Amino acid sequence: MRSLGIDLGGTHLRAAVFDADHVKLAEHRELVGEPRDPERIAARVAELATQLGADAVGIGIAAMLRDARGTVASSPHLRWRDVPFGELLAARLPRDLPLGIYNDVNAIAWGETRAGAARGCRDVLAVYVGTGIGAGVVTNGELVAGASQTAGELGHTKVRWGDDAEPCACGQRGCLEAYLGGSYLERRYGALASELDAAAAAGDPDALARWTELATLLAVALGNAIAVLNPERLVLGGGVLARCPMLVELATAALEIAAPRASLEHLAVVTGELGDDAGLVGAADLVTSTRRKP
Amino acid sequence: MRSLGIDLGGTHLRAAVFDADHVKLAEHRELVGEPRDPERIAARVAELATQLGADAVGIGIAAMLRDARGTVASSPHLRWRDVPFGELLAARLPRDLPLGIYNDVNAIAWGETRAGAARGCRDVLAVYVGTGIGAGVVTNGELVAGASQTAGELGHTKVRWGDDAEPCACGQRGCLEAYLGGSYLERRYGALASELDAAAAAGDPDALARWTELATLLAVALGNAIAVLNPERLVLGGGVLARCPMLVELATAALEIAAPRASLEHLAVVTGELGDDAGLVGAADLVTSTRRKP
Repeated sequence: MRSLGIDLGGTHLRAAVFDADHVKLAEHRELVGEPRDPERIAARVAELATQLGADAVGIGIAAMLRDARGTVASSPHLRWRDVPFGELLAARLPRDLPLGIYNDVNAIAWGETRAGAARGCRDVLAVYVGTGIGAGVVTNGELVAGASQTAGELGHTKVRWGDDAEPCACGQRGCLEAYLGGSYLERRYGALASELDAAAAAGDPDALARWTELATLLAVALGNAIAVLNPERLVLGGGVLARCPMLVELATAALEIAAPRASLEHLAVVTGELGDDAGLVGAADLVTSTRRKP
Repeated sequence: MRSLGIDLGGTHLRAAVFDADHVKLAEHRELVGEPRDPERIAARVAELATQLGADAVGIGIAAMLRDARGTVASSPHLRWRDVPFGELLAARLPRDLPLGIYNDVNAIAWGETRAGAARGCRDVLAVYVGTGIGAGVVTNGELVAGASQTAGELGHTKVRWGDDAEPCACGQRGCLEAYLGGSYLERRYGALASELDAAAAAGDPDALARWTELATLLAVALGNAIAVLNPERLVLGGGVLARCPMLVELATAALEIAAPRASLEHLAVVTGELGDDAGLVGAADLVTSTRRKP
């Protein structure tokens, strides 16, 4: 079995073929380029599937999905809205080739669960803070896709409400992402997240106060998801967290008062192990997994 | 197959035997009484299992559990802490009799999923607002117990933080339960929840302002869980919600801005159908279910 995992993001289209033991047999990367025409990208994915000799194709896509057939409700990264990407792609692939389309962070979470930092765990919450914020949830050993493939939207859980809540690109207010997403942070404070983190770590009082407040918001969102899910592993990843050790330290400390104590007893907080490969492994595994047939 | 479902609460011990189609064959109810000695209660449950001819015993217990063996971490209702109830009970039952011990609200959620308001649904969030607040989560057609049987603690998700957050009996601050749990409501406002609801519905400005604020907190907690889980059914129940239609109306309306829009597209908000039987059906089904072996 050669399963092709694809990560379709705003900048790159990455692909890798894995065997059943998650060993990478081949890989490929290219720019998504312009125009971001869904038909052209679907054709390109189909070409890659042929070139790489894929027996199955799993795609993680930086998008909010609408259903299990891979309809994209919206993708700011690809500038798509209401695109039947799954259908476009299926029409270009052999009829009997297994095809699965997943939210990119769900695929990453599954990759870390099958072959990375949460290997062997049945209940996992994986949270990625980068330009945006996403999460993936595993319960009873299976990925939670939800009723319409939009589970794991931790970035759009509300941490403020009322008139002073920050507006979010999703159209709502007070979303975690509107406070901690990298693009918001940098716009609001006119500095890179890593610079803010360094200033807080160096003891700059303003930076530390701001970071403490934001770390509390992150801890509340994490703690509330932990209260509901009782995971054994919290996997943290994404560019903002990777570049902001002080923020992670403050948020992890705040988790002690944000999450129920009983939910913390069995919880280990870890960092993702697979890096950029997590979503490829996850998508390739999801489409072939006997445990999860979306 | 005669499966015995038991609901062990702070006041009553209720029991019913069901066949595989969830038809109730016999039922029994008695006061828990005093003293609340775990050994005595375990012996009483074992007697009932014999009297009612049970082939399996599933118990929903008003407690925070610590593991899948039925160790009670704490139960304010029973005034237990660190009680190995599962072991005490197993020692009094035939060795090969299937036995399962569950959080009571988890059992209720499963009952509504198997035979009630969320029948046939694979992704369900069931929330009960009574004296306390609890929830049960179903994903991919299975109950989510979590790593240590404490999933579904929506009552202890934080809706306020900082120094002015209300203290909760759990020892933390700002928990949803500390704002909307029936015992807190009545202590804080010196009135029954139903009286506050009637005043708000009649247009009393103070009551309406207070109810709007509390409904927002409930909606935020519900919306945040919905963002993470993407359920197809939100089941609402419990004494406070049953007696407070205005609160439910305000909270349901506030959900429109609290939950991501894509998560609401496929969501139906419903009321529990099985009443007091939900937990009995759920516990009896969980212990015999081939789909979920805790």
